[in-house]
Parts: sequence; structure tokens; C-alpha cells
Amino acid sequence: MRDVAIIGVSQTKFGELWDTSFRDMITEAGLKAIQDSGIKGVDLDAMYVGNMSAGLFVEQEHIASLIADQAGLNPLPCTRVEAACASGGLALRSGIMAVASGYHDIVISAGVEKMTDVVDPTPIVATASDQEWEAQQGVNFPSLYAMIARRHMYEYGTTREQLAMFSVINHKNGARNPLAQFGMEITIDQVLNSSIVADPLRLLDCSPITDGAAAVILCPAEDARKYTDSPVYVKASTQASGTIALHERKDITTIDSTVHAARKAYKMAGLTPKDIDAVEVHDCFSINGLLAIEDLGFVEKGKAGPFVEDGMTEIDGQIPVNPSGGLKSRGHPLGATGIAQAAEIVWQLRGQAGKRQVKDIEVGMTHNIGGTGGTAAVHILSN
Amino acid sequence: MRDVAIIGVSQTKFGELWDTSFRDMITEAGLKAIQDSGIKGVDLDAMYVGNMSAGLFVEQEHIASLIADQAGLNPLPCTRVEAACASGGLALRSGIMAVASGYHDIVISAGVEKMTDVVDPTPIVATASDQEWEAQQGVNFPSLYAMIARRHMYEYGTTREQLAMFSVINHKNGARNPLAQFGMEITIDQVLNSSIVADPLRLLDCSPITDGAAAVILCPAEDARKYTDSPVYVKASTQASGTIALHERKDITTIDSTVHAARKAYKMAGLTPKDIDAVEVHDCFSINGLLAIEDLGFVEKGKAGPFVEDGMTEIDGQIPVNPSGGLKSRGHPLGATGIAQAAEIVWQLRGQAGKRQVKDIEVGMTHNIGGTGGTAAVHILSN
Repeated sequence: MRDVAIIGVSQTKFGELWDTSFRDMITEAGLKAIQDSGIKGVDLDAMYVGNMSAGLFVEQEHIASLIADQAGLNPLPCTRVEAACASGGLALRSGIMAVASGYHDIVISAGVEKMTDVVDPTPIVATASDQEWEAQQGVNFPSLYAMIARRHMYEYGTTREQLAMFSVINHKNGARNPLAQFGMEITIDQVLNSSIVADPLRLLDCSPITDGAAAVILCPAEDARKYTDSPVYVKASTQASGTIALHERKDITTIDSTVHAARKAYKMAGLTPKDIDAVEVHDCFSINGLLAIEDLGFVEKGKAGPFVEDGMTEIDGQIPVNPSGGLKSRGHPLGATGIAQAAEIVWQLRGQAGKRQVKDIEVGMTHNIGGTGGTAAVHILSN
Repeated sequence: MRDVAIIGVSQTKFGELWDTSFRDMITEAGLKAIQDSGIKGVDLDAMYVGNMSAGLFVEQEHIASLIADQAGLNPLPCTRVEAACASGGLALRSGIMAVASGYHDIVISAGVEKMTDVVDPTPIVATASDQEWEAQQGVNFPSLYAMIARRHMYEYGTTREQLAMFSVINHKNGARNPLAQFGMEITIDQVLNSSIVADPLRLLDCSPITDGAAAVILCPAEDARKYTDSPVYVKASTQASGTIALHERKDITTIDSTVHAARKAYKMAGLTPKDIDAVEVHDCFSINGLLAIEDLGFVEKGKAGPFVEDGMTEIDGQIPVNPSGGLKSRGHPLGATGIAQAAEIVWQLRGQAGKRQVKDIEVGMTHNIGGTGGTAAVHILSN
């Protein structure tokens, strides 16, 4: 197995990009990542693209071919990878394997989602849940995560304020990220007084509907310094599956796929949670940010609420969580999120994160999940 | 790079499977492949699933998670791969890379499509073309391939009867394949008198709408004999992209992605077209069967018509093409086709193909394309 390095990253502005098409976004992200990496487009050997549902959002499947074509990259092998909101994480992992296998040398792993071209994205996002047992019965993602939140509050005494604090810290960080969808800070009171979406979750607990794309360039670790003075190395790339439907779980306050993927990642990297200097977690809803902190091993099960409330996840805290602003503030273009997380960790490791820079960071982690945890992907990156 | 072997294969019956759901089909294919391989389900390390458009066909994305769950395989890492009708070929290739990289040891690569749960599948299939420049302008796949056929007839004198002959041979083979959708032989007259779909293509030039699934089990070549006495080895796995839209091509009678993927495959395997003893080609329409024979290098450009007419592609001909019956007779459940092609070549190499067995076969090839050739995947397999 060849070791793999990241030599270039990019992210488009995230937001409601009315003037920018699916094709425009992914091409912009790809070209910026190529520029960032020091390679030329012709050096590319293969492309992987994470995308959840271009078929339903823009009536276009076969998007890897479309992208290769639009970017002038034919006959480059291009492959779409899909695992709902974890599509980006799996596109990253597929690219890593393509390089590790020796099949390809320089690979671009990208992610993209155009969510604002439809009147109602909610039923489309709901196709990430169990269609027959969940979506068709009228339950969508806010209500699934609301049940998880209620149970977490019941089991562990997690408070409404603690959930709110997760969003507040996200926005504090995101306000320092020029590529974030929401660049404003918010207060606990604003979260607590925002509209109810699915009790106990309110509007400011929920990640938004977002257009955007991101990309990373990978190469064999031994070649990385040919292209850049600041390579970032892939220490672990893991993935696990869990039940797609919530009702099948023994305990809905733990996401088993995260636990499995994290355990494998620490083993692969030879590290423990204490070695991680910053983490980008999948906070599609505030409660999922808390679950991630627990399931990744940063605190014991049930202790994330007080941990967040005490400021331990702020940029200068014990474990900085979502320095980018996370899904809540940076935005959540489904297929792009896993790649944007990796881009953020690379910028942090390079010391290029500006006003949101984590100090003395040597090792970072990304955590990307699909649905309510049917899929989880975990990556550990280091200088 | 580790060498990779196939130790188990399966295919469900292909057809209009009204009593069988998406979940049922893929689970059946997976379990049969496991039984065929000599492994146990718990030995599996990862799964890749090729599927074009479950989002539009059955309103379900995140299908890899659904399948892992349905088959009781959690926390197995499961990934969906999509490249329109080449989704199966790329799922096979992703599985091969996962084993070659050392990330995983025993991998199942499967493919599935449930196409008959919608009133009109044509607009869904059309999302494999360029939505903005083709599908939204009213052109669908029969009409795209009709233009290719017309041009091929104009450039090279290919006749209507030669196109028909491709379907006739497919059905002759498929009538000997108990898993084929259409188990009856047809005549040239029947093809020529079948309904016009898009002139010059008639109903019996077109592959059908099909439900079905298929699977293969992969492992490191060095371990293959632990599980089976008849391993099949992956000699080449390649992929290329071409323009997604037809109007962008210099010459619509050549599918560049096939040419590129084939050239790389022969190089990777150290073989030439003369070394191939049987090939499964992507004949979504009869004309595409002719293009494949040319673009894969079995005859010069423009010569496929007479070659087929002379019986050179029959099971006992110079190069047996589609012993399974091909997309026309076996059926074409989009995401499953690339895997079913590999299963057929494995059965042929093992001598298990019954009445459609190719004699003295040592090396076989599969050729799977997406859309009108936006993606092509080529595999070479041998004993």
C-alpha cells in the first residue's frame, strides 16, 4: 500500500448561488485545486466526485462524465461516488485508494451539490433515509434528529442551551471563514427563539440548504514534495455502515458507524483521540455535533453537552471542533461537505486558516456521515 | 499493486420482476455470489454497488447503506458508484482497486437496477445524456443511437440487415441462457419488421427495460486458491471518459472512451485483440455492438457490419461476442450490466456456461459504457 498525500485543496463560496450552475461550481473547485497544488491539468490521472442526488436536484446522472467534459479533461477516468451526505468523504477515500493501489498517481477527489434549483429540497434529502420505512411514512431528517435529540436529553440531561451552544460556536468560527454561507455570529438567545422545525430542534440548530463544491488533489506521499512545500499526509481513511433506519438501532444516541470508523482510523494512524488537534464533524443538526464528539472518543457518551457549554470545543479549547464553521455556518452542499472538511483541515495544517487558525496543530480529523449514520467516513490528516 | 482474482459470481434472473423489490434483488445476488465463492459473509471487507438511478427509479439514494443493512452486513464499508449504464463496470473497478491497494482483502462488487416501478423509464434513462444540450431538447437514447447508426451506414455502407444480424446472434445465445430476459430466438425478418423506434432503429435493435442484479467476489490473487479451485484473474481494469454530448464529437461513428480504455487494457494485460477468446460488449442498441467490435480492435473501423453478417461473432466464430445474449437478450438493468458481463466471462472461463459455452477459452473481455460513451470501462479476465 502506497502512502498518500494531499497537495492541493479548494472550496467555492458556499451559499444560495443563484447565478452559478452545477457545472460552473465543480469546474471552479477543480481548477482552483489544480492551481493550489502546483500540478498541471494534464498531470491528472483520475477523478472521483462525491454527489448525493444530481438526478433529483438537477435531473442529471452520469455527472462524472459531464464534469470531465466540462473541464476539458477527457479521456480522464471519472467516477461518481454516492453515500448521501457522506458522498464527499467516500470520494476522498476512493481517490486515496486509487493512489494507494498504484492504479493512478495524481487524482482529484471533488464534491458538489446544487440544491437550490428545486422548489422543495426536503423530499430529495429524505431519499438518504429509509424510503419505505421512514420517508414515505412522513418522517424527514429534522424529525429523525429531533427524536435523537429528545432521547439524548432524556438519557443524559443534555439541555436545550447546550445544543444551542454548538451552533453559537460554529457561527463564531464561520464568521471568520470568507467561504462560509453564513458569516454572522449568533447568540444562544437567538437559537432558542428561532422557529421550531421539529421539537426540540429549531431553525438555528439545522444546517442550511447550500450550493457549493470543493476539491482536493492527491498523489503518492513520496512524490508530494515535487509539487508543494507543505504536503499533508493521509494517516487514516476509514468507513463503516450502520442501519439506515433509526428504528432498527438498539440505542439512537450512539451512531455505530462513527464508532466503528473512528476505532479503525485511530488504529490505522496509531493515534488516540488525545492526539487530534482539531476536528471537522458532521453537524447537520446541533445534536449530531454532540453525538460526533462522543462517538469519536473526545468525551464519554453523554458528556458532550457540558463539554461544549464549557467552551472546550472552541478554537482555543481542548479540542477545536469545526474551525470552518461546520455544516451549520459554512453550509452543507451534501456531496461537497466531506471534501470541504478535508480542505479546512489542510488549510489548518498549513497555517493558512487566517482568523480561525488553530494554534500548534499537527494532526486533524474529518468526520462525514450519510443520513442518520447509515454511512460514516473518518480521515486523519497530518503534516 | 496486488494482483486481484474473482472467486465468486452471481446473477439474478433478468426481466420484468414485478414480485421482486430493489432490496430483494441485490440481496439475492449478493448471497448467491457469497455461496459461489466459498467465503462466509463475515469474511467480506467492503462492498461496492453500481447503480445508475435509484433516486429517480425508486426514490432511494444512499443505497449502499440500505443494502448493507438489508443483507445484515453492518458495519461493512459500502459504497455506491455511478456512471450511468457503466455503473457496474466502475463498481467492479472500484472493488479491484480496493483489493489492489491493500485497504481491503475480500470485496463484493455488485450492480442493481429496478426499472419497472415507474410509468415511463425513458426520461430517467435520458439523465445519462447531457440534460441541458440533449435530453431537454427532446433527444433520447434511441434517437442519439439512431443518428450514430445513420452515420455509420452512410460512411461505411453498413446495412439494415447487418444491424439486425447483431440482434439475431444475441438472441441465439440468450436462448441458451436461463437467466436471460428474452429466451427466444429471432430472425432477421422479425427485426426488420418490428416497430420503428427511431429510424433506422427498430424495436428489436433496442435493449429492453430490465430489473436485475449481479455480483462478483474479489480477493488478492495470492489467496484465491484458499477459496476456489477455479479462480479467474483480473489482467486489466481500465476506464476512460469521452464527451457526454454527441454533438461535441469529431466523429460519431467512433466511441473514443472505448478506444482509450481498450488501448490501456491491452497494454496493462500485455495482450492484443487476437488474444481475446470471447467478449461481452455493451450493445444497448445493435449499432453500439458494431461500434464496440471496431473500437475494441477486433476489426478495422467500418468493417463490423460484414464481420457480423458473416457469422464471425457467433459462439463458434472468430471472436465470440456476447455469449450471454448481451444487453439485447439477457436484458439491461443499467447498474447491473457491467457486473453481469463479468459473471458471464467467469462462467465461460470456468466452463460452466452450458449450451452457450465458448470452446477453448482462456481470456475474456468485458466492455461497459455509460450514455453514448461518456464513460467506458474495459476488463480483461483470464484463467
